[in-house]
This record gives sequence, structure tokens and C-alpha cells, in this order.
Amino acid sequence: MIHGGIIENYPDFPSNGIDFSINVNPLGYPKLVDKAIIKNLKSLNRYPDIYYRKTIENVANYLNIDSENVVLGNGSMEIIDVIIRLFDRILIDEPCFNEYKKRAKVWKKNIASFKDSELKTNDLIILGNPNNPTGELIPYDLRELYKKIRESGAFLMLDETFIEFADKEEESIILFKTFGFNSVAIIRAATKFFSLPGLRFGYGAVSKDLNEKIKSIQNPWSLNAMVEPVSEIIFKDEEYISNSKRLVSCERERLKVLYKDIKSVKMLPSSANFYLLEVKNSAKELFEFLLKEGIMARIFNEEDLKGEYLRFAIRNREDNDLLINKIKKYDKGLMI
Amino acid sequence: MIHGGIIENYPDFPSNGIDFSINVNPLGYPKLVDKAIIKNLKSLNRYPDIYYRKTIENVANYLNIDSENVVLGNGSMEIIDVIIRLFDRILIDEPCFNEYKKRAKVWKKNIASFKDSELKTNDLIILGNPNNPTGELIPYDLRELYKKIRESGAFLMLDETFIEFADKEEESIILFKTFGFNSVAIIRAATKFFSLPGLRFGYGAVSKDLNEKIKSIQNPWSLNAMVEPVSEIIFKDEEYISNSKRLVSCERERLKVLYKDIKSVKMLPSSANFYLLEVKNSAKELFEFLLKEGIMARIFNEEDLKGEYLRFAIRNREDNDLLINKIKKYDKGLMI
Repeated sequence: MIHGGIIENYPDFPSNGIDFSINVNPLGYPKLVDKAIIKNLKSLNRYPDIYYRKTIENVANYLNIDSENVVLGNGSMEIIDVIIRLFDRILIDEPCFNEYKKRAKVWKKNIASFKDSELKTNDLIILGNPNNPTGELIPYDLRELYKKIRESGAFLMLDETFIEFADKEEESIILFKTFGFNSVAIIRAATKFFSLPGLRFGYGAVSKDLNEKIKSIQNPWSLNAMVEPVSEIIFKDEEYISNSKRLVSCERERLKVLYKDIKSVKMLPSSANFYLLEVKNSAKELFEFLLKEGIMARIFNEEDLKGEYLRFAIRNREDNDLLINKIKKYDKGLMI
Repeated sequence: MIHGGIIENYPDFPSNGIDFSINVNPLGYPKLVDKAIIKNLKSLNRYPDIYYRKTIENVANYLNIDSENVVLGNGSMEIIDVIIRLFDRILIDEPCFNEYKKRAKVWKKNIASFKDSELKTNDLIILGNPNNPTGELIPYDLRELYKKIRESGAFLMLDETFIEFADKEEESIILFKTFGFNSVAIIRAATKFFSLPGLRFGYGAVSKDLNEKIKSIQNPWSLNAMVEPVSEIIFKDEEYISNSKRLVSCERERLKVLYKDIKSVKMLPSSANFYLLEVKNSAKELFEFLLKEGIMARIFNEEDLKGEYLRFAIRNREDNDLLINKIKKYDKGLMI
């Protein structure tokens, strides 16, 4: 299985090459992060607060929810994993983030297609919103979906680690706050939007009861001591937040236009900071062409995504233009 | 349950107070750690290598074992937790680190006393070496113990997160290397000896087969991106390593002498960087006396350690002398 960020597997990839396979914020993390960490290096000398009180407070303020609804994890992965453990059957809409299925297999859960299944008690539905690798927001009305969830006794986990990149943010947190987050978990993280995959800082919103259950089974100290000082500054950096949203939104619109002129590929609709490119010929061929040109795309194996697709991060204007030019070069080569 | 490092629970504790409740290296972490992290802050912008290849290599060199035997975890906790999952019954010698029992309960395992049980197939024996909170090395001969393990089909986990502080390091790694680490796991960490509890960097030695099993069920990216650069430098810092061993060893011997003159307490034998103090009157009373004097001891609840004990870290000479003086003051108060 090939994950994003597998540049280590291509030792020949030039050091000045551009990695479009990792789908994090093209601006990099907020500038104040460096200073916050340097100022708090001595925290490494201490255990993190076992209750992560300040971090929880910062997340609660950012999401505008109560502290008792804030769940934390060593990346969104730990939260997703621990919730999967609690249910009998896992329902997913493929293609989706391949870790849902992998974790469900680790826990020997039944796995089925959400679209094709009748909901039962103790079903866990996991939907990416926006979904990875497609970049699309869920095609369901949240209120209707929630009604079905409550009627059947199922549970909904929305993986919203990319939601801040969507033009119109779905109001999942506002909506489900009115229901005390009963039967839902909304997963967020600093990983993608704040471009901090190396920090391992996941968070989310769940009901008070579920939160207590999760805390009772989570490993202690699963978040490192740098998380707290970082949580003090990133959520308040409004300039960074609005610049990030604007950049990704504008570039996404610009790329739509630019790709229209290239016959051999098709950019699929996306509400995230990445998009799928449908390749008319061979995705592998284009992947290897770009690799030689110093561009790393995200390629999929059959199990993760059938068909001729590559996934690209939306990067800054210069990088995106470079990519477009390389793909035009590839396109031209096909014509000859 | 009160963990070490609970200073947050005592908001009145003076900021110039001394925390003897955390049992990490009194020298603090190696000086080069700050530089390594500052130089590699940009790693936070990327996912850690999902295979942690460089980190594994660094641990393999430090422990002088093959890479395929190196297991990593988000602190030793993650490794201990994932191994507990794999067995039917957990055997411990109480008093011991209370997380063994807590994790076993989370996984709904049977828990029994090692001393009082006949070994069965699929038993997991967990022994702290040195043991926390007593500080003592295991009282068993490793070769005899291993013979029993192999005959019964049980499995031995040695939690050696404090082993570098012991004067005579048990040769567990050298011994079990000759057996390919079959039926054993030796757990180490940067947490205690390298004084990096905030980093969450656990490692250990297991057989190749068990390692593959662990990797197949561990969450991906469970170690943060700062671990790799830190692993590049701490294991090579021979001056720090020898200074740390010398300081703790000398202070331990010095404290033994100093405590002999104090009638109301007794220092119990230890091979670690902490020791138990048996309090003739009330441990709680001494704890509260010291708290007012700006000293935080580790106090236990009934479940973790019965009897009148407090645990103290071995700190630098100045701090240890201060503690001795405060305890003498307490002792004197009792006489009046």
C-alpha cells in the first residue's frame, strides 16, 4: 500500500522536485509554530498534562463547543481507530481513505458498503467530508442522514480533516451540537489544514458519554508535549486561516479552467485541497513521466482506487502552473 | 489514580518548588536535543516516514541488535499496550507500574499474581526491571526464568525503561539476542533515562515474528516527526550517558548514608533513579509537610501500593540535600 508522503521510496527523486502527493496546506504551518515550540522545548522534559486540559480548552474555543465534547488523539488516526473498536460493523463508501478499512480489519469487524446496506444497531458509518481521495463533500443531506441514524441505532463518524478547505463549510458541528453530538463523531485535525502532519494532533467532537468511554480505553499521554503550545497559537491565527482558505479556493477555480484545455486528462470536482485527475491513457505512465520531470503525484493501487486516476495536492500558484505545464508537455507528447 | 507529574493538580505548589514525583534523569535531556529539534522544525510539515527507517536504525545501533528486532511506540505505553492485547492472561508482581493492570483491564484480560501462578500457554508475564515504584531489579535469574517460559509456552515482557540507571545492567538484551528474542519483549524508552517524557519515544527488542504482528496492528504514524532527529543524537551522546549513570549511582549511595541518620523514615534498596521511603508514621502527613515546604513527593493510593510509602526521584546533589534537610526538619518536629 502506498501512502502519501512516500518520497523516501524514490531515492532518485530530485531534492528540488515538488511533492504533490501530500495533501496538506500549501502555505505550510503557521509561522508562529516555530516560536511556540522553541519557547517550550523544556516541556519535552516533562510528561504532558495527562488530562490535556489547556489543549482541550483551545480546541473547544476553536470549534465553539463544550470542553466535555472535545476528544483528542495522536493524529485523527487514534480517534478513528478507537471509535472503530466500539462498533460491530463498519460501513464505508469507497473510494475512501484506506485506513478506515485497514483499521476495521485489524479489529476483525465486518465491513460493508454504506450505499448498499440497510442500517442496523451498532453499525458505524464512516464518511469523509470532504472525502479522500475524491475531494467531494458528502452527497447526503445531514439532517436526513441523522434521522436515519437515530431511527436505526447506527452511529455516524464524519472525517472532516479537510473541511476547512471547502468553500461552503458544512455546518456539521453547529448542527450536531444541538443534539449533544449523540450518535455522531466529527473528526478534525491539525494535520491537513494547519499543515502539521509531523505533530500528530487530532481532535474532534463527540457526546460526553462517548468521550468518557474513549478516555477510559485510550493510552495515557498519547499526545506529545509540543501539542499544547501549538494549540495555543494556531487556532487564533485568523490571518493564516483566511489566507489558506482563499489560496486553496482560488487555485482550485483557476486549475479547473487550466485543465479544460488539456485533452488527455480531466480534473474531477473537488471541495478540498487536492483533486483527482482522470487520465485518458495510463495513470502509471503519467505518474512516471512526472516523476522524471521532478513531480511526485499520488498513485493508487487497485484496492484503493480502481481506474486511471492520479491525485494532486493544490499547491501555490507557481507550483500549480509548473504542474500544468508538465502535463501539457505530456499531452503534447501523446499527440506526436 | 495519581500519576507522577501531577503538579497541575496542586495549583498552590510554588513555582520554585522541586518536583521529586517525576522519575526522569536529573540532568534533563541531552543538550543537543534542542538544536536537533530547532534544525528539523520543518519536519512537522511532513508525515514521519511511515516505516521509521532511520529511527529504527538508530535504536538498533544503540541496543546492538538487528533492525528487524526493533519495535517502536508512542512511548513505551503503546508497545506495552499492543503486546498485552495479544495474550490471554497477564501475570504481574505487585507493586508495579499501575498501567500494566489498567491496560489489561481495558482489554478484559485475566490478571493474576506471577509469584502465585502456575505458568500456562499464552500467559504474559510483565516485570519491571528495575521495577516501579520499588526501584529493584527482578529477583529472578534470567536464564532460569526463560527456561520456565519456554517450557510453559508463556511470554515474558521486561519493562526496562529504567535499566540504564542500574549499576550493573542486567544483560537481558545480550542474553535474549542469542535466542532471537523468542517469547520475550524488552521494553526501553527515551522517556526516563534521556529525560524526554514529552517526546513520546518508546522502543524495544522483540522477535522478528512478533514485530511483524505488532506492526500489522499498530496505528500508522504513531510517533511524531521530532523523534527521528532526536534519535540521531541522544544515543551517541556518550558523555551525557556516562555522566547520568555516574550522577544517579553516586547520589543513590550518598542518600543511603544520609537517610541512616533519620529515624522516622527508611530508604528502601533501589537500582533506579528513584527510591521508596518507608514512613514510620503517616506517609500522607509527610507528603503534606513536604508540599508546604515546596517539595512534591509521589504519594500512592491503596490500590497501587499498600502501606506508608512515598517515592522520590534521585535528583542532583543540591536538591537531594535540600530534601534530606526538609525530612530532618519533619523528623525533628516529631520528636518535640
